Amino acid sequence: MKLALIGCGNVGKALIDLLAMKKDYLIARKISLTLCCVLDSKGGIYDDSGIDWGSLSKHLERQSLGTHKQYAAGGEEIHRIIQNMNIDTAVVATPTNKQTGEPGLTYIKALLKRGINVVTADKGPILLAYHALYQMALAHNAKLCIGCTTGGALPSVNAGLIDLAGADIYKIQGILNGTTNFILDEMEKHSISYEKALEKAQHLGIAETDPSLDVEGWDTAVKLLILTNVLMGSHKTLEDISVQGITGLTVADIIEARKKGEKFKLIGSAVKEDNAIRMRVGLEAIDNSNAFYRVDGKDKAVTYCSDTLGELTIIGGASGVIPAAASLLRDIINL
Amino acid sequence: MKLALIGCGNVGKALIDLLAMKKDYLIARKISLTLCCVLDSKGGIYDDSGIDWGSLSKHLERQSLGTHKQYAAGGEEIHRIIQNMNIDTAVVATPTNKQTGEPGLTYIKALLKRGINVVTADKGPILLAYHALYQMALAHNAKLCIGCTTGGALPSVNAGLIDLAGADIYKIQGILNGTTNFILDEMEKHSISYEKALEKAQHLGIAETDPSLDVEGWDTAVKLLILTNVLMGSHKTLEDISVQGITGLTVADIIEARKKGEKFKLIGSAVKEDNAIRMRVGLEAIDNSNAFYRVDGKDKAVTYCSDTLGELTIIGGASGVIPAAASLLRDIINL
Repeated sequence: MKLALIGCGNVGKALIDLLAMKKDYLIARKISLTLCCVLDSKGGIYDDSGIDWGSLSKHLERQSLGTHKQYAAGGEEIHRIIQNMNIDTAVVATPTNKQTGEPGLTYIKALLKRGINVVTADKGPILLAYHALYQMALAHNAKLCIGCTTGGALPSVNAGLIDLAGADIYKIQGILNGTTNFILDEMEKHSISYEKALEKAQHLGIAETDPSLDVEGWDTAVKLLILTNVLMGSHKTLEDISVQGITGLTVADIIEARKKGEKFKLIGSAVKEDNAIRMRVGLEAIDNSNAFYRVDGKDKAVTYCSDTLGELTIIGGASGVIPAAASLLRDIINL
Repeated sequence: MKLALIGCGNVGKALIDLLAMKKDYLIARKISLTLCCVLDSKGGIYDDSGIDWGSLSKHLERQSLGTHKQYAAGGEEIHRIIQNMNIDTAVVATPTNKQTGEPGLTYIKALLKRGINVVTADKGPILLAYHALYQMALAHNAKLCIGCTTGGALPSVNAGLIDLAGADIYKIQGILNGTTNFILDEMEKHSISYEKALEKAQHLGIAETDPSLDVEGWDTAVKLLILTNVLMGSHKTLEDISVQGITGLTVADIIEARKKGEKFKLIGSAVKEDNAIRMRVGLEAIDNSNAFYRVDGKDKAVTYCSDTLGELTIIGGASGVIPAAASLLRDIINL
């Protein structure tokens, strides 16, 4: 399989490292992957006979892609390459824009129209245009793989599609954001304020300098929306979700809940009843009869309720760029 | 896709019912399934243009397959049909024989050699010959799907293969038998003896009249063996597993463990260390920091530890013939 990588940020680089690291694994399973193309926003490397992963991985440890000796720059270069490259599958690891889906959306459309499979980690295009892209993929006999868009290593959307294939899912509940789960866990464990716990998460590189997308519940909402539209076949938007974050939680709330044997978790849920779907993101106090009670630290989890395959809970999903890249590789291998 | 069903016991019949029930689901997803053939041990029905699921399902509600008007009997009929039928995928739902793998093993070999995909619920052939069958499938460009052999609706082996594709699994732990988990749960909840709990499980149809395969740990061992050989690439046999069941557990043991906040669970585990794999099945006392602590009743669960995709726990897996049939349909759809 001939691969292209579009977007060479942290996850893209980690994928190149991972390909080098998993060489023996791939050989043992007779999976032949050739990386023919790596693009960033200003140009890229293209070699039909295959780019050496190992040396590219070493180059990127110290220098940018743009300084590579094979790098061809130019404003229109990336579009020209997409139109002409001879590949089977493209990994689109562009930065996420939740308003426009760009630049990933344009790239994904161009690739699918050429019948090239797309594996993407970019939530933007999936959030805004999943059904249209899925139909485009079908029409051009290509595959659209989105396993990395809803919780990285946690196989949330894939589990719904594959492990529950043939069943109707009528309820989705998830702890879908590792950063807020870490902050809540710190608050619970050490009885510290939200601000103190956030500071620790930022210090450890778990929370971003501007943590608002995570702590105000929007990252959870985006993932919930993708899961719901993909797995329940709906056409919802972010406006359909009642979203509340974790910033209002106090130490007093935590102590009060603890007396009742409860903990707070930020839970996204979608429930289908009488053909209507109710969606919300918010704090819920749960006790230890709930499977999410022990989902601590940066872990994530999702529960699906279905008609013929019953209830399925999946807990895990290591965080970080290597697991994110590994979840892209998972989609590539499953192709 | 043209389908054949080999074996028309409870699970086979439930699959026919399920196909009838899921007609709209399949149409909505543009999945075209035509059932061309249903065989039992003495002959069968074969109709290249497709057998009507609905009317067959109704027929089987009251009468056996052998009384169907299209039924052709004969000792060699089933082999002759397998050699000549024009189908893409066969569902093999033959009764399990853990010593010989027959009759399923012979059928699966004959099908794969003809390039026909196999979806099977029969543990016997997989237990005894997974690697040989897998190579046979590869050589003849067919697929071998075994999602129903290690816990029915719980997507245990599929999750390891698909959701952890590209990762190396170095530890497997599971509550893989619903019957023993139900018995243990009854003993815990009501502080009753093993004998009393077994009686209740038998009364509810959860445990068989001869419960030895379940309660002595062998069903768990068989599933653990399949998971280990498939996911760790090993060639182990049942003799490599230290197996202990639940029959020795007393109410006094349970009360003692409860004082420490612990419960007993029958856990199968395989751990890879320095390229050696240790496997065991036995009772373990676990506390509520363990994700398996809340796996109650007939539920099942499995945890995988992997290098690049971290730890993954899957809990669920409704029991019964409908979920078992649904897990066959899942494999068919994923094909």
